[in-house]
Amino acid sequence: MAMATTPHSLLLQNPNTNFLKNPKTHFATIPMTATRLTTTSTTLNPAKPISVKCSATTTHIQDRSPAQSESQDRVFNFAAGPAVLPEHVLRKAQSELYNWRGSGMSVMEMSHRGKEFLSIIQKAESDLRTLLNIPDEYSVLFLQGGATTQFAAIPLNLCKPDDKVDYLVTGSWGDKAVKEAQKYSNPKVIWSGKSEKYTKIPAFEELEQSADAKYLHICANETIHGVEFKTYPNPKNGLLIADMSSNFCSKPVDVSKFGIIYAGAQKNVGPSGVTIVIIRKDLIGNAQPVTPVMLDYKIHDENKSLYNTPPCYGIYMCGLVFEDLLEQGGLVEIEKKNKRKADILYNAIDESKGFYRCPVEKSVRSLMNVPFTLEKAELEAEFVKEAAKEKMVQLKGHRSVGGMRASIYNAMPLAGVEKLVAFMKEFQAKHA
Amino acid sequence: MAMATTPHSLLLQNPNTNFLKNPKTHFATIPMTATRLTTTSTTLNPAKPISVKCSATTTHIQDRSPAQSESQDRVFNFAAGPAVLPEHVLRKAQSELYNWRGSGMSVMEMSHRGKEFLSIIQKAESDLRTLLNIPDEYSVLFLQGGATTQFAAIPLNLCKPDDKVDYLVTGSWGDKAVKEAQKYSNPKVIWSGKSEKYTKIPAFEELEQSADAKYLHICANETIHGVEFKTYPNPKNGLLIADMSSNFCSKPVDVSKFGIIYAGAQKNVGPSGVTIVIIRKDLIGNAQPVTPVMLDYKIHDENKSLYNTPPCYGIYMCGLVFEDLLEQGGLVEIEKKNKRKADILYNAIDESKGFYRCPVEKSVRSLMNVPFTLEKAELEAEFVKEAAKEKMVQLKGHRSVGGMRASIYNAMPLAGVEKLVAFMKEFQAKHA
Repeated sequence: MAMATTPHSLLLQNPNTNFLKNPKTHFATIPMTATRLTTTSTTLNPAKPISVKCSATTTHIQDRSPAQSESQDRVFNFAAGPAVLPEHVLRKAQSELYNWRGSGMSVMEMSHRGKEFLSIIQKAESDLRTLLNIPDEYSVLFLQGGATTQFAAIPLNLCKPDDKVDYLVTGSWGDKAVKEAQKYSNPKVIWSGKSEKYTKIPAFEELEQSADAKYLHICANETIHGVEFKTYPNPKNGLLIADMSSNFCSKPVDVSKFGIIYAGAQKNVGPSGVTIVIIRKDLIGNAQPVTPVMLDYKIHDENKSLYNTPPCYGIYMCGLVFEDLLEQGGLVEIEKKNKRKADILYNAIDESKGFYRCPVEKSVRSLMNVPFTLEKAELEAEFVKEAAKEKMVQLKGHRSVGGMRASIYNAMPLAGVEKLVAFMKEFQAKHA
Repeated sequence: MAMATTPHSLLLQNPNTNFLKNPKTHFATIPMTATRLTTTSTTLNPAKPISVKCSATTTHIQDRSPAQSESQDRVFNFAAGPAVLPEHVLRKAQSELYNWRGSGMSVMEMSHRGKEFLSIIQKAESDLRTLLNIPDEYSVLFLQGGATTQFAAIPLNLCKPDDKVDYLVTGSWGDKAVKEAQKYSNPKVIWSGKSEKYTKIPAFEELEQSADAKYLHICANETIHGVEFKTYPNPKNGLLIADMSSNFCSKPVDVSKFGIIYAGAQKNVGPSGVTIVIIRKDLIGNAQPVTPVMLDYKIHDENKSLYNTPPCYGIYMCGLVFEDLLEQGGLVEIEKKNKRKADILYNAIDESKGFYRCPVEKSVRSLMNVPFTLEKAELEAEFVKEAAKEKMVQLKGHRSVGGMRASIYNAMPLAGVEKLVAFMKEFQAKHA
């Protein structure tokens, strides 16, 4: 049986392998593009040796560590972030780490003002603009740090200390954002899901927004609690600000509905240490006097994110991921894949007759982070341990909520989710 | 003729090669350690092809980009930062980028709270403590961003808004630091070299320090102007704070003389995006209310730099560099190598009968950044262009000062400096 998975490939089942033990070899991807060929073809036969001339890679072959010789032996990494990255993006980064495209140096060694790095950051921005269809009146900034730095930067750049701002709190990150905003503005929590353990998003018409709030802030996807906005509220003053750290580039978004979209890279688009800020240009230029220069959007906008050294290697990795997302057909295709993966997992939970439970209201369940518990809580530690033996790691829930959490970002292969679901059924059969 | 270069290797001249064209093959390193063997042995014969079985690296070999097949073709990169990294550190990073030491994932994909990354950051701290002999009463923090973020963090953490602080300004970075400090404290510039174009450091006894200054801030090495402190002033209140971004780990330092040492990693110890702060523990815990949580040293100290996601991959790279510095014999040996490289270059300038000029007073010339001009300024563009043809890049001086600048950090090989000096003599002979 063959089923389409991407515009670039077909998935075929291999009757000669045991799916649960070897999902990567059980399904063989027949690539339609060169990159996919080089990346996935060997999963058909990872053990088959070939003889090649490595004239220019002598030291590389001699120098490779034990890890290198085990490089087919990937785990399925369900971590919430830093998280799994696309395999062939990692392969490409590996192949050019020592000498980027004949430049004679690694991207890590490049002057951020040299023509090589400028080409990298400009292409990254251009590809991101294509992916999200970002209007010209928005600036794209590649900044140091994570979303928590932006929790301060946003009120510092948009407010005077006594300005009112509204926060809709649907999880721990939204809660942290409002606490930081208290230092630089006058925030009001217009709704919080805390009393219901962050399992819901309210009906927007029920929200009592402040008439004179400068903006309304939401966390579009709560990584810890697995609550995701499917539609967005309309702020009274029209200025919606969203932390999209954990669902950035996981689906199409109408950027024009937002004043600011910001995202730490380390969930869906790169390694930790880069935060992307997409901001409507008319909002730039009013930072409070106490704003550290590195948190002032005007400085970074005027200098195209090069006021001083940015996190160059992280930006390079984000660029490789953006290229990959475009190759896969863009965010419409990515969303289809993410929905399929999430459906398989949520269905397995809902059809377990209560053996597994997801506390989140169905209409707002995240496509990225799937928290679940076991009816027999005493089995949760064993579940995590047994899964790890099957090379499915980082399934333990966040320490603040317990249970399990499977993060299934863009780069988590369908085979990873299918293997997890097969394992869940086996585990249930053993303990029911 | 043989001359000792490191405790681990010997340098031999090869009479069959032209030094200026092929310095890497002209000098052959005879390694004393396995890592050095794998890294440098092929420089003897970079073109020689070998046939190997790549059973487990099939995709890697198939997948390698044009860059990979040119990976011997390194330039000598004199950039001021991001800057050259040790070749075999890059090789090691490349070999384990896709699968770190059998973990089944890249360091870029690891949860910062998982045991794998914890082992990485803990070893990085431990090796740095060994390198700099850091006393127990100091904390070591691995933070997001660059030194400019610390320009704000230092007064925010150590001062009340009206507290007096002293700044000794010996270059552009010290000047930027004091400007940022004005937002959060009452800084006084007790000496500035600006009127003399930042070519000097004053006699410390001449300094008029404020009696009640909370601290005295210096920039230990001015990257743009090439001015480096060889000894350190004694602050009236005993609290000396130093930005060591561009000479960090280039020589031994008595940490106990300082309240805070901070350094952006992207000069001597890693890629951009990591800043290391070494701070006396009793200075932690008094941040101003307006301090963004990510700039509060207390938060990072209490959470061992893991309050939330740190720049994991950059910290991993710093750790590989620290290992390498220890392998080379530690900072005493590193300083010897750096002095030797700097001597060769400054001597070439001073012996050029004025054809080349270094404006910096001899007693404070930097071992890391060597600025110089040409008597015939109209030749400077040609110098940079011709050098680039010989694979010596990023020699143009900072746009604010012009001329040339050769940054010769720890990772710049002796051969690179020797090649530059040979080129300078040829260029002078051609244009004298």
